[in-house]
Amino acid sequence: MAIVRVGFLELWVRDLERSLEFYQGLLGLRLERREGHVAYLRGYEELEWSLKLTQAPFPAVRALGFKVDSEGLEQGLAWARQEGLPHRLESDWGRPEILRLQDPFGYPLAFYFRAEKLPRVLQNYHEYRGPGLLRLDHLNVFSPEVAKATRYYQEALGFRLSEYTEDEEGRLWASWLHRKGNVHDIAFTNGEGPRLHHFAYWLPDAMAILRAADILAGAMRTDQIERGPGRHGISNAMFLYLRDPDGHRVELYTSDYLTVDPDHPPLRWSLSDPRRQTLWGHRTPRSWFLEGSPFLDLEGRPIPTRASGLEGIPEHVI
Amino acid sequence: MAIVRVGFLELWVRDLERSLEFYQGLLGLRLERREGHVAYLRGYEELEWSLKLTQAPFPAVRALGFKVDSEGLEQGLAWARQEGLPHRLESDWGRPEILRLQDPFGYPLAFYFRAEKLPRVLQNYHEYRGPGLLRLDHLNVFSPEVAKATRYYQEALGFRLSEYTEDEEGRLWASWLHRKGNVHDIAFTNGEGPRLHHFAYWLPDAMAILRAADILAGAMRTDQIERGPGRHGISNAMFLYLRDPDGHRVELYTSDYLTVDPDHPPLRWSLSDPRRQTLWGHRTPRSWFLEGSPFLDLEGRPIPTRASGLEGIPEHVI
Amino acid sequence: MAIVRVGFLELWVRDLERSLEFYQGLLGLRLERREGHVAYLRGYEELEWSLKLTQAPFPAVRALGFKVDSEGLEQGLAWARQEGLPHRLESDWGRPEILRLQDPFGYPLAFYFRAEKLPRVLQNYHEYRGPGLLRLDHLNVFSPEVAKATRYYQEALGFRLSEYTEDEEGRLWASWLHRKGNVHDIAFTNGEGPRLHHFAYWLPDAMAILRAADILAGAMRTDQIERGPGRHGISNAMFLYLRDPDGHRVELYTSDYLTVDPDHPPLRWSLSDPRRQTLWGHRTPRSWFLEGSPFLDLEGRPIPTRASGLEGIPEHVI
Amino acid sequence: MAIVRVGFLELWVRDLERSLEFYQGLLGLRLERREGHVAYLRGYEELEWSLKLTQAPFPAVRALGFKVDSEGLEQGLAWARQEGLPHRLESDWGRPEILRLQDPFGYPLAFYFRAEKLPRVLQNYHEYRGPGLLRLDHLNVFSPEVAKATRYYQEALGFRLSEYTEDEEGRLWASWLHRKGNVHDIAFTNGEGPRLHHFAYWLPDAMAILRAADILAGAMRTDQIERGPGRHGISNAMFLYLRDPDGHRVELYTSDYLTVDPDHPPLRWSLSDPRRQTLWGHRTPRSWFLEGSPFLDLEGRPIPTRASGLEGIPEHVI
Repeated sequence: MAIVRVGFLELWVRDLERSLEFYQGLLGLRLERREGHVAYLRGYEELEWSLKLTQAPFPAVRALGFKVDSEGLEQGLAWARQEGLPHRLESDWGRPEILRLQDPFGYPLAFYFRAEKLPRVLQNYHEYRGPGLLRLDHLNVFSPEVAKATRYYQEALGFRLSEYTEDEEGRLWASWLHRKGNVHDIAFTNGEGPRLHHFAYWLPDAMAILRAADILAGAMRTDQIERGPGRHGISNAMFLYLRDPDGHRVELYTSDYLTVDPDHPPLRWSLSDPRRQTLWGHRTPRSWFLEGSPFLDLEGRPIPTRASGLEGIPEHVI
Repeated sequence: MAIVRVGFLELWVRDLERSLEFYQGLLGLRLERREGHVAYLRGYEELEWSLKLTQAPFPAVRALGFKVDSEGLEQGLAWARQEGLPHRLESDWGRPEILRLQDPFGYPLAFYFRAEKLPRVLQNYHEYRGPGLLRLDHLNVFSPEVAKATRYYQEALGFRLSEYTEDEEGRLWASWLHRKGNVHDIAFTNGEGPRLHHFAYWLPDAMAILRAADILAGAMRTDQIERGPGRHGISNAMFLYLRDPDGHRVELYTSDYLTVDPDHPPLRWSLSDPRRQTLWGHRTPRSWFLEGSPFLDLEGRPIPTRASGLEGIPEHVI
Repeated sequence: MAIVRVGFLELWVRDLERSLEFYQGLLGLRLERREGHVAYLRGYEELEWSLKLTQAPFPAVRALGFKVDSEGLEQGLAWARQEGLPHRLESDWGRPEILRLQDPFGYPLAFYFRAEKLPRVLQNYHEYRGPGLLRLDHLNVFSPEVAKATRYYQEALGFRLSEYTEDEEGRLWASWLHRKGNVHDIAFTNGEGPRLHHFAYWLPDAMAILRAADILAGAMRTDQIERGPGRHGISNAMFLYLRDPDGHRVELYTSDYLTVDPDHPPLRWSLSDPRRQTLWGHRTPRSWFLEGSPFLDLEGRPIPTRASGLEGIPEHVI
Repeated sequence: MAIVRVGFLELWVRDLERSLEFYQGLLGLRLERREGHVAYLRGYEELEWSLKLTQAPFPAVRALGFKVDSEGLEQGLAWARQEGLPHRLESDWGRPEILRLQDPFGYPLAFYFRAEKLPRVLQNYHEYRGPGLLRLDHLNVFSPEVAKATRYYQEALGFRLSEYTEDEEGRLWASWLHRKGNVHDIAFTNGEGPRLHHFAYWLPDAMAILRAADILAGAMRTDQIERGPGRHGISNAMFLYLRDPDGHRVELYTSDYLTVDPDHPPLRWSLSDPRRQTLWGHRTPRSWFLEGSPFLDLEGRPIPTRASGLEGIPEHVI
């Protein structure tokens, strides 16, 4: 199936005002539409909305959206039927056809091609607010079976592996997979799942990452800074991990690298390499390995999770 | 006289709304007080206001303000009397005593020590707007007698020379003089004067300079970008020169160097060196050598100007 | 034909030492191999060499290299035969099969898939020199028939249009075409051609662009800074154009945007828009519209050029 | 006494080659002179050397150097005699007169005025290496009697207080004191002393701080990154703390603020404020509160230290 790139995320939040104060007020995402308890936002580079927030009784993730090509919806439908996956066609604001389905691992995927284009604002620099988030870059999900999910996403969905973490016994702890030509559109991280680990927006440069940390600190929200700023060994990206008012984890991300070559060799990291998580050797907070957001099934019920057989977290932890 | 640093600038503008839309709306200066046709602004690092805008029939500069030490006002008064300079004591918002005087060259100086401190906002990063102007850095004035003014400001007012431009016959075309320990608090530039050439705010880094250019371009104000972004040979600073809605020239400036050593040797530049104006060799627009803002005398009348004996402008011009 | 991305450039230079002093010494490209009068260089992110310099009697461009997928060489060969294009199979250092051909417009293309991978050095930050060039980003060529070449590259070679410049009569003056998912792998610029206008390396951020200008100025090479630093309206990229010791034009480039969506709408610019060339309104030097590097045919002879029917250069010029 | 600014630091190191590989090779300081087991280095902005390394049997700090004005040496001598402080006149490379003395708290101060100026290299950007350290900014020393030392340095030596840390009982845990007009030339930190806590070089911007961390990581020296990169609440500066091969702690520092006003109000921080140490809320490693470098007396013997009466370290620690 011709998946083009990660396209959007749908979050359930408990208090839409409070969430908008975070995503729009502090992070500066553009609010493009608000209807009652639903809000649609985008980054400054995007021509399509990429974040949908819905006020709901508890925090959850309703959909991991992927842009597909013009034949992707039909292919997705065929795949769902062939695999016997729960699925449904929906429409949303500016997106007449969205194929929602629950994949074999429980992830609530959503495929769409047609989308009404919003006006370009990339060069409306006088309207930029906050650190200037540009575009949704990737999703990262917890999985109790990283090896299996990684193989499936490569074989059935055409994702390509860019980097991976292995222990000395050759067991896969994490993988980074892409369609759009940088390090990832989706990553699998070992742990209780299926759950969302985080979603990430691309920023123009490392200075914008630092500005984001300053803005959170200025607003007395240091408790929402979970990790960073730092540079990942994996992906080479500069990062900052924040927790939104519901605990959803959002990464600000920039400066990874190009992976379009068909013969691009995946990069192996050893689980025990301290430069893997943060190139500068920083320790990672324990919460980063344990906490995530629940997914919803097509009926809006939380998807049950399973613990992973790979137990323990890396030693290089605070 | 113990001048500490440049402290503020008072501008006459024709349309206060339009000026605030520029200084507050685009450049992001903080509006601290507005009373009818008068507005007081400051940068994010400043504890005292640094820019006063007054709506008036024509654009002009009413005062070049300098912070002095606790005995500076008395010394200034003695100096004004001794030299027979027009002078007057005033008060303004939060500044109970300002000694205004017209110096021997016609520059409308204003000295003050006592100032009500505004709340610190340096770390209120969530409130920053625009490129984040931090503090007033310097003033630059046209003078038809640079050599004489430079010598007087050193001898009578205690300024120290950091850099200067000379031609091959040893004639002084421009000088940079400081009190606070960086390249300048005031500079003299050859040309019809006395007039204000520009005033400059300090920004945190070169990225902020670029962001300012982007913001002006985003707002379709490229006609107000007169010169830059670039790096000066002189001062080593990154710069951007803008023209406000009345044509007053404001520089965004960062990254010069420390000059506190009593034996710091002034740096000589040759008038014909193309790296002097812009280290990267860029040409300077003709307007930069010709256009400036008129000064007002203590009665609010424009101060007459004289042409300079040093004619011609550098060859390295657009 | 499945072209993946621009892959390399082969330049003839008159003095290899002098060229290496520029590309390796000042720009900091990594010299990976030198054999007599030939040198191979790469950026810090690249796993394959991207610039080949050969000492020769006159400056010229021998090949515009494109990485293709595993079937691209065969497809290219079929295309060359079908169109009757001069072509030849070659090998080079670490690249056993390169299909060189002269396309219908005279551009000396080279396709390759297999390439020996060099060791990763992206995170060897202690070895970075100069502004830290990361990877070859695109080529830009003069063409006397931009509209025709643009259509052919889309239809026969699968390139996708991201931006274009048109005059009010709907004539195409320039086009930006990509395969890898950012603004371009190749661009066509109206003018006497076929000639190379410039090639561009990607840098990590705008600060690196400024550092490049500082480095050239520090080395007293301001005469080799032709244009910039600035931000393009087209592509949104930060840029700096340099001329190498033989006059070949190299761009340092960063911060354009993602174009992977199949329905990504091409962006039209009006020829008379001053923000098109430089978003900040800067004028472009005349040389930029007139000077380029000659191409070589498969026998190493200069390819004759033709003037363009679209005469004149934009008004917004120094 | 007219102290102008911090001027230099003299370190004893165990292996000069290894230290130069760190200070010159990784941090990029300029080696200006080497004579046997002694090396003199400077930052790119400095006209005088600022770091002297001497190979010796154990790591230590021989002198905390301060630039004084033309009468400072005489005043210093009078002060030493009056207070009965051990003192001695020395000369060094390019500095004919250095007054060394041990102050009442045991700190080995060195005052000098006359210094041979080295050639300007600030704009020799093509020669910059590493993150581009510009100038020595400040010293930070452990003291078991911060309140007493702070008062003495203000009253006897003319330092001015910019910021300080107090607990709820009004006890002083740390103080920042300056002469040159930014946040500090010297700081006192509660702890076993007298010992050197760290010395700091000024960098041009936050990007240079990040580059330094990348360089250390690239060279596989993450174990020498002790803390940061981050932004201090205190001083507002961006920082990175490294440990040199002998454990001497060096800070890379930028972006604090101007403090020249005589009525600049010192800023109080509460010991329990988590934004004090790192504005972003990061915890500080325990070593940062405990480890420092011993001082030498005028005879080259280690100066005995005392524990502080203020026990305990902040809670916000890793």
